[in-house]
Parts: sequence; C-alpha cells; structure tokens
Amino acid sequence: MPEVHFGHRFGDVLVTVLDVDGQPLSDREVSVEQCAHAFSFGNIGFELISLASEETDAPRSALADLWFDVFNTATLPFYWGLFEPQRGRPDTARLHRAAKWFVDHGCRVKGHPLVWHTLTADWLREASTDEVEAAVRARIRRDVADFADVVQAWDAINEAVIMPVFRNERHRNAITRLAWDRGRIATVRLAFEEARATDPAATLVLNDFDMSTAYECLIEGVLDAGVQVDAIGLQSHMHQGYWGEEKTLAILERFSRYGLPIHLTETTLVSGQLMPPEIVDLNDYQIPSWPSTPAGEQRQADEIVRHYRTLLAHPSVQAITYWGLSDDGAWLGAPAGLVRADGTPKPAYDALRTLVKEEWWLAPTKLRTDEAGRVQVRGFLGDYRLRHAGRTASFAIAGPESAVTLRPEQ
Amino acid sequence: MPEVHFGHRFGDVLVTVLDVDGQPLSDREVSVEQCAHAFSFGNIGFELISLASEETDAPRSALADLWFDVFNTATLPFYWGLFEPQRGRPDTARLHRAAKWFVDHGCRVKGHPLVWHTLTADWLREASTDEVEAAVRARIRRDVADFADVVQAWDAINEAVIMPVFRNERHRNAITRLAWDRGRIATVRLAFEEARATDPAATLVLNDFDMSTAYECLIEGVLDAGVQVDAIGLQSHMHQGYWGEEKTLAILERFSRYGLPIHLTETTLVSGQLMPPEIVDLNDYQIPSWPSTPAGEQRQADEIVRHYRTLLAHPSVQAITYWGLSDDGAWLGAPAGLVRADGTPKPAYDALRTLVKEEWWLAPTKLRTDEAGRVQVRGFLGDYRLRHAGRTASFAIAGPESAVTLRPEQ
Repeated sequence: MPEVHFGHRFGDVLVTVLDVDGQPLSDREVSVEQCAHAFSFGNIGFELISLASEETDAPRSALADLWFDVFNTATLPFYWGLFEPQRGRPDTARLHRAAKWFVDHGCRVKGHPLVWHTLTADWLREASTDEVEAAVRARIRRDVADFADVVQAWDAINEAVIMPVFRNERHRNAITRLAWDRGRIATVRLAFEEARATDPAATLVLNDFDMSTAYECLIEGVLDAGVQVDAIGLQSHMHQGYWGEEKTLAILERFSRYGLPIHLTETTLVSGQLMPPEIVDLNDYQIPSWPSTPAGEQRQADEIVRHYRTLLAHPSVQAITYWGLSDDGAWLGAPAGLVRADGTPKPAYDALRTLVKEEWWLAPTKLRTDEAGRVQVRGFLGDYRLRHAGRTASFAIAGPESAVTLRPEQ
Repeated sequence: MPEVHFGHRFGDVLVTVLDVDGQPLSDREVSVEQCAHAFSFGNIGFELISLASEETDAPRSALADLWFDVFNTATLPFYWGLFEPQRGRPDTARLHRAAKWFVDHGCRVKGHPLVWHTLTADWLREASTDEVEAAVRARIRRDVADFADVVQAWDAINEAVIMPVFRNERHRNAITRLAWDRGRIATVRLAFEEARATDPAATLVLNDFDMSTAYECLIEGVLDAGVQVDAIGLQSHMHQGYWGEEKTLAILERFSRYGLPIHLTETTLVSGQLMPPEIVDLNDYQIPSWPSTPAGEQRQADEIVRHYRTLLAHPSVQAITYWGLSDDGAWLGAPAGLVRADGTPKPAYDALRTLVKEEWWLAPTKLRTDEAGRVQVRGFLGDYRLRHAGRTASFAIAGPESAVTLRPEQ
C-alpha cells in the first residue's frame, strides 16, 4: 500500500476492542478489513437502469457485478427532454426505483443534470423567458424533492460557460435563451437556490467541460455573487487523448485555488483511435465504427492508472466519475468503456480495480491487541469492519487521526 | 451622405437664427459646417509624445497634421514599468505636457492602462501581495488625480481574463500574483473603485483582447458584483487577418447585450503579410522585416472601410481607437500603420479620412432660413458652426431631435 503522495487519503485510528463484558480484549488477534471508500469512485449507472428499475428484485447481471466491484457512486440521467418528454409526465417512478436499487447495493447516487441546454425539454421552446424560468424552478423543486431520499448529489447546472451562446443546433433551445436573457450568474443562482432550498443536505455541483479561463471567470463571478457551490465539476472527457500529468496538474492548480472540492465528473479514455484534435463539439464526431484495439486497450490501462494516481494525489479531488462501463452503447460509439461490448473486462478495468480494491484498500488484515485491548489501524479513508471470534464491529476512518472503542457483536 | 444603417449616428436640430438685435433672421442664407465628431475616432498618440511634450510650443509635424486630420481622441501610454521605472519617480511632467498638447489641439485623451500585468513595475516583484495591492491603489489615485484635468478616459484594467494565469514570462510579475491571490473580480473592483473615487467624471473602461466566452463570464461577474463599468473595451488587433463582418457582428451581438457602450480600443489591420494563425500571444511573433506591400495596402484600405462601417452601424459602439499612425516604430514591427515609414499616407489613411471627414461629416453647407429665422440641420452627432455675415455661432447635435436658438457673434 504505497503512500507516497497519498498521505492525505489515509487516516490512523486507535481502536480499543472490548469483549462481550465490556472489558478490554488484551493480547488477542483481531481481523480488520475495509468495506468502503470515503472517496467517490463513480461511474454512470445508465447501463444498469433497465435492470435496476425492474419491479421485481432482479438478480445482478455480470455487468452489474463488474460495476459494483469497483464503483461506489452512480450518476443517473435526469436530462429533462428524456426524463419528461411530455410535460407533466416525468419518468420519476422508474428512475426512483433505479436509484433506490443502487442505494440498496451500498452506493451513493448523483443526479445529472438539473439545468442544461442540451437534451432539454423541447416543449419549452416557444415559452416566454419568464415561463421558462418558472418551469425550470418548478422542475428543480419537484425532482430534487422526489429523489431526496436516494440522490445525494446533483449537477445543479451543466456547461453554463457556453450555455447562453450555444449555437450547435437548428433552433435555439429555451435554456440557452434563458441564460442569454438573464445572464449566466442569474441562471446558475437559480439552479443552486432552488436545489438548496429543496434539499439543504445535497451536494450541489457546478459542472463544465470548459477548462479554459472562461470557467475560472464564471466560478469567480458565481462565488463573488454569493452562490454556495459545494464542488467544482470538471468533465474531463479525453476522446482526443489523455491530458497527461502536466496538464492535469495545471488544471487542478487553477481550479483548486477557490478552496472548493473538485469532482472529475465525466472521465473518459478511449481504447481505440483518438478523435481528431480539430473537433470542437465532441458530438460532431460521428463515425460508423470505432473499435477497441489491443494497443488502444494497453494505452487506456496505462493512462487510467496515471490519471487516477495524479488525481488522488491532489488533496482537492473528492470524486472521480468514469463515464460508462461498457463499450456497448457508449457515448459517441467510442470505445471509452472499461468493459468490451462482449462483456469482458479490458486491461483498464483490471488496472483500476487493482488501484481501488488493492493498492488503496485494506484487505482483511490480522492485528494483535495490546494489553489495553488496542490496535492501531492505518487505512484509506472509508468504512471498516473488525472481527473477533465470529463477532464484528464497524468503524470509519474519517480523518488523519482518531480513536474509537468497539464492542464486536454477533 | 448615405445613412443606411447609420441613422443612430445622425441627429436633426431645428436652429433658430437671431440677428444682432435678437430678432429672427428671416429668409437669409447661412452656412453650417461640422467642427467635430461626438464619436471617438481615436488613435494612439505615442508617436507624437516627444513633439507634444516639448517645453516650447513646437510647430506640428507633418505626421501630426495627418493625425489631427482624422482623429479626435489620443490614447497615451501609462505602462507602469515605463512610466515609473524607479519607484517614486513617475514620468508625470512630460506626459502631462503631452496630454495637454492634445487637449489644446481639440482632442480628448485616454490613459492606457492603470492596471496590467505586462510592462508593470518590476520593483514590485518581491513585495508581499498586500504591499502590491497598496502600491497599485496608490498608483491609480496618484495618476488619475495628476491627469484629471487632461485625461477623460482610462483603461482601468487591461486583460484581466488572462491576468492571474499569465505565464509568458520568466518570473511571475506582481500584478499576476495579485490577481491570482485576490481573484479577478477583486482586482477589477480595486482598479475601478480607486479611479472612480479619484475622478468620478472619468470614463472607465474594462479592456481585453479575449473575445471568447471567458470575457463574457468576467463581465457578468464584474457587473453582478456591482462594479460600475462605463464601457467594455475590445482590443481587436487583427495581425492575423481581418475578422470580417460576420465575426465582428457576432462579437458585437455578444458584448452589447450588457447594455454598456463598446469601445474598440486597439484596432489594427496590417498592410503586409498576415501573422500565422497558430500564434497565440502576438508578442511571440518576431521577424526581422515585415514590409508593407502594394497588395497589402489595398487590402488594408478595403478592410478598414468595411470594419469602420460595420462598427459605426452598431448602436453600442461609441469609440474606435486605431493602434498607431505610422509604420515607423509600430508594435511588433508590423505594417499596421496608416502611414508608411517614409511618412506618406497609405490608401487606408485616405479611405478612413474619407469616411470620417467626408461621408460622415457635414462640410460647409449653405441653407436658407425661413420666415421665422429657422433652418433644419441634419448631421452626424458632433459640434457645428453656423456662419452669417462674418459672424459665427456654435451648436451641437447631441441626439435624434433638438432645437436651439443662436445669435451669431463677431
């Protein structure tokens, strides 16, 4: 468990173990193992929704097993135009079942996104800007309330930098018009204030693909305006090639200076040819076939390790969401999955699993208590289980140093 | 005087002319002529400073004559590192004489810039950020006060978008560090609040070369933060080629939506080869010789007319500053001047003069008063003179419609 550069991810806890009578369990062997990461290793859960939303308690698929073996946070789709294609008929019940399924499997759930110009409700196109604003506010209140029991975090607004000047469509959508008429900050404020008022406990993310100074300027304006942003989201789709450590660190340096947690919200690395660098809107790149190749898979495996290491080494990063598990149905048809279309894991899957469940993970470990019944446990921040003589107790490592007294139970 | 698209530049004034006894001057011929433009047709005055700052009242050079025949607003250099190379020894006296010389010749004067990371005071490099802030504030107060009688407008801050992340230098300058530590909005606010407090009547410009969404985001943040910006400055150096009408209009559409006047602050069109498009920081392009060519001069003349027409046709544009009159000593050695290094005017000079002093200008025109002594005058917004029988009176056309009574005097 090498810790160079990752010290801030670890904590030490002094565990005092009591026996069934409440006396210190001196000089005995106990077993300690990690159960969960505090860090959000996320992925989209789109591919599992049909399974997850079934009325009956369906058995987990092989793909689901692969998903849960690495990831602990599921991003679910709330694209307005798909979620509520007909006004007043939102897809709430099905998506709520899916979200609950993930929660029941020990996952956190994030909703993506509450406000975005792409895939927004087409039935708003002709409405007045005042009506659009009212509808957006109502939509946020409704959905955040409906999912408050299962969704812990939201992309409150997506791509606000380009939002008012977005042109890559035949007819201007209502959200772009709203952002043009009201301004970016007012639109961001609207999203955050409605979501915050509805679920004060939710983590609200400002999310963008724009890594330029434009996003810095937006963030500074939003923060100066007093909007309470819980995390800065950086999309980091890398269809055009891995950023590399230098660029990644430069981006982290620039966006961490606001003192807010950073979420890498949409991470992709392809295991095939790279998208040409001249493409500006990734959606414009459409090719009939984009295969995963052996050489591409090795590159992807190498890059995903380098990227996750770089990100985890930076104290501001609190979440990474990979964008898709399988190549089957992947965004843009790109081989950006960690699992091939035939369901077999790529090297990148194994490499990431090794990081998340081996290098940064405390496997069951035998320790011996001292005379006062104490063992010192050092591990990656997260949830842990201690076992002794068939009895177990749970504890967490939540910070650099702590102490806890446990009385394992049947 | 074609007015298509330029109606907002014109005004009608009903002039009632009185004779020496104060009676309406019925049915007489009077002459009306324009004396000055309300619109700021600006240029930098850098090339004339050595002449303008002489202690004695030197005669105007041929270059100065060319300057005054087209331009009415001079931008003068306040680059901190050049203006005050040694702390406490600013170049105030010389530059004030130069500014006053322009004012005495009927010009407005603009100072450029109060805060900028490039060419800033090197003696601040090692100072603490608090000291830097205090020094910047003191510098603004001192210079705005010292020049309040002659300088009407200031670029309060230049290139704030890139300011905190500017890297194209060996050692980080103090202004970049200030903007990094305090944020862009705080740095912009500082510049505007000090200048405003010192000279409430000055026109304070937020100026940038960045025409991307980043500048929009900065503007929105600054305005939302309550900073009172008098004009949005767009640099518009076109060493890499004329923008063309479509791009120019798209930029004007985006930056006019804040309801603020737009100043095109640094306009250049070269009359030689174009700088390659891959150059990001124009300063990085250094070639031994960059000649003006006959074909380049024809292109420049065509483009300057198209550009000024496009800009004047947009109601938000209130000023255009061309960046340099002569190729001799032009920025980057580029043939961006309107006059060749040998002092002869290029076609672009003549073309611009034709616009400013002929097409958009009311030459001496004879009109006949009606029975009530009235003549209707329509002209480009600006200052006018009426003559009758060797007597003159001045008036202005300041808006769409007005009326004025004049009593011409000796």
